[in-house]
Amino acid sequence: MTSALIDSLRKGNRLALSRILSQVENGTETGMAALEELFLETGNAQKIGITGPPGSGKSTLVNALARELRQRQPDKKVAIIAVDPSSPFTGGAVLGDRVRMLDLEVDKQIFIRSMASRGALGGLAEQTEALSQVFDAAGYDFILIETVGAGQSEVDVVNLAHTTIVVDTPGTGDDIQSIKAGILEIADILVVNKADRPGVDQSVSYLRNMIEMGYARSINNGKHHLQDFHEDTVNEPAPAGWIPPILKTIAYEYQGIKELTDAILAHAAHLRQSGQWHAKDQASIRANIRRQLITSLLSDFNQKVPTNLLDSLIEKAQKRAISPNEAVRVLLTYNRIISLESSE
Amino acid sequence: MTSALIDSLRKGNRLALSRILSQVENGTETGMAALEELFLETGNAQKIGITGPPGSGKSTLVNALARELRQRQPDKKVAIIAVDPSSPFTGGAVLGDRVRMLDLEVDKQIFIRSMASRGALGGLAEQTEALSQVFDAAGYDFILIETVGAGQSEVDVVNLAHTTIVVDTPGTGDDIQSIKAGILEIADILVVNKADRPGVDQSVSYLRNMIEMGYARSINNGKHHLQDFHEDTVNEPAPAGWIPPILKTIAYEYQGIKELTDAILAHAAHLRQSGQWHAKDQASIRANIRRQLITSLLSDFNQKVPTNLLDSLIEKAQKRAISPNEAVRVLLTYNRIISLESSE
Repeated sequence: MTSALIDSLRKGNRLALSRILSQVENGTETGMAALEELFLETGNAQKIGITGPPGSGKSTLVNALARELRQRQPDKKVAIIAVDPSSPFTGGAVLGDRVRMLDLEVDKQIFIRSMASRGALGGLAEQTEALSQVFDAAGYDFILIETVGAGQSEVDVVNLAHTTIVVDTPGTGDDIQSIKAGILEIADILVVNKADRPGVDQSVSYLRNMIEMGYARSINNGKHHLQDFHEDTVNEPAPAGWIPPILKTIAYEYQGIKELTDAILAHAAHLRQSGQWHAKDQASIRANIRRQLITSLLSDFNQKVPTNLLDSLIEKAQKRAISPNEAVRVLLTYNRIISLESSE
Repeated sequence: MTSALIDSLRKGNRLALSRILSQVENGTETGMAALEELFLETGNAQKIGITGPPGSGKSTLVNALARELRQRQPDKKVAIIAVDPSSPFTGGAVLGDRVRMLDLEVDKQIFIRSMASRGALGGLAEQTEALSQVFDAAGYDFILIETVGAGQSEVDVVNLAHTTIVVDTPGTGDDIQSIKAGILEIADILVVNKADRPGVDQSVSYLRNMIEMGYARSINNGKHHLQDFHEDTVNEPAPAGWIPPILKTIAYEYQGIKELTDAILAHAAHLRQSGQWHAKDQASIRANIRRQLITSLLSDFNQKVPTNLLDSLIEKAQKRAISPNEAVRVLLTYNRIISLESSE
């Protein structure tokens, strides 16, 4: 039954895709089996993370990007994963936005999936990666992943993307802190959205300063001057590293979307040429293996070491009679002895 | 030498404390040994997490709280850990703030420590916990931990606190999203700071709604009406659970600080009476043991399994010849065989 479902997915059946996504998201046995099989068909899609503070217009930007990518390359498919409970894609925002997003669903080569981050915060990146793999195997060429704000889970989610777009809006003072250094560090492309608002130039020069101070990705590798993506002001050989361009958009009016799409495609080309696409893929496989190993080793350990031993050690540590380190040493010794006995 | 340093710390020597904090933060062998020894002297301090968006005045609030706690209980000591690169405690903000914060350092029973979150994002909670343990063992009764914004690392950091204070400022529309559901869920006390600004009542009623919708901690346990901390409007027996009070403050003018301090002390009493203090301590010890176990098991595994086997499996997975799951199965089988051989 699973393989019939997977076959349907391969043939482009949206219902089959939707069902497998749910099985994977819920971590069912069927879902995990499907994921393992589908993994062998992944590796093509460009994962694009879009992140920024609430109110920066990320969803409208994602919406416009999906249209532009489809218009430009009509044979390619676009998936949207909204990892944000307040995203219009998730139905969390005002009705007008929601309706606007629904327009996309008319295009059968666009698939929108929202993920509830509540309750699964810890494994959000892992879940997003799994859903991306399903889309990738299902032949989706671009996977737009929309996440909110700053913070570790955001960083984790966008770290698995090939291309990370950080969105901000014009503003000064307090607002300027809304993009934190932690998230700027992982930006491949910076966008000042709502560029018809006052303060746009300050925002651009703020971001430029941040990049010059070395906050953005790869800037430490390239010993080059800063340049805008569409400005050709620097008479030097093309940089070996990627210099994050700063782009102005008015997503609502579709302004700057073509330039942003250019930058996204250029970044993919850069990743492939520089070998970073391959390196990123390797890193994500390595992390995946590590995660599974930890799960297996811990479950093996739990089977061998009785619960009451662990509980009594925790109790001793709570009374400050032993340290957690001492408890770990006892557990490891016990495990070693048991393993020796069982292998005799 | 280490034990001499630890003895100095026990005697209240601030330089010794500072040195051990650095050793612990850098994860040196000396630091880890000190931490293990000092753990046996922990368990007294109330850890208080203060979190909220940039510009909410967290630092000024922490500053005022430290003063108030010291004035009220002159025999008790206060530590401040600023986990925020843009905090005035870290020197990241405007000079005026920084100078104001420095006032505190005149009081020798207050110790301020800032932590750079950059570069160590993943283990931020772990590091904060370790520093807290050092302060706890050094006889600090209150540990104020200031962190920025929302996100997983913030949630992790405040999760280790006994009492979590979420700070926001008056505002409507976009601003209201600045406190996200994820962080509200872990609030024990809600503070609307800068309460002299317009929109304060909307903010309070927004937060009240969020709490009524079940977004805040323990509210699901207590089947009680919502009540303000300092209002006695409900003629019912005292709730078994804790209902997060919503307090208005103007930290800069020291307004509402006494009430906030009351709430903090009341929350500590509640935690002790309800057994939650004990449960929290247990959970943190359990997590600590789990973390150390994972490190040990992985390092043991790495010693047994040759790097080139892992590398060749990753390469096969990268060519989509095998799945990461298959790679893990091969690694575990290899590990089992090697373990059997070595024990013969």
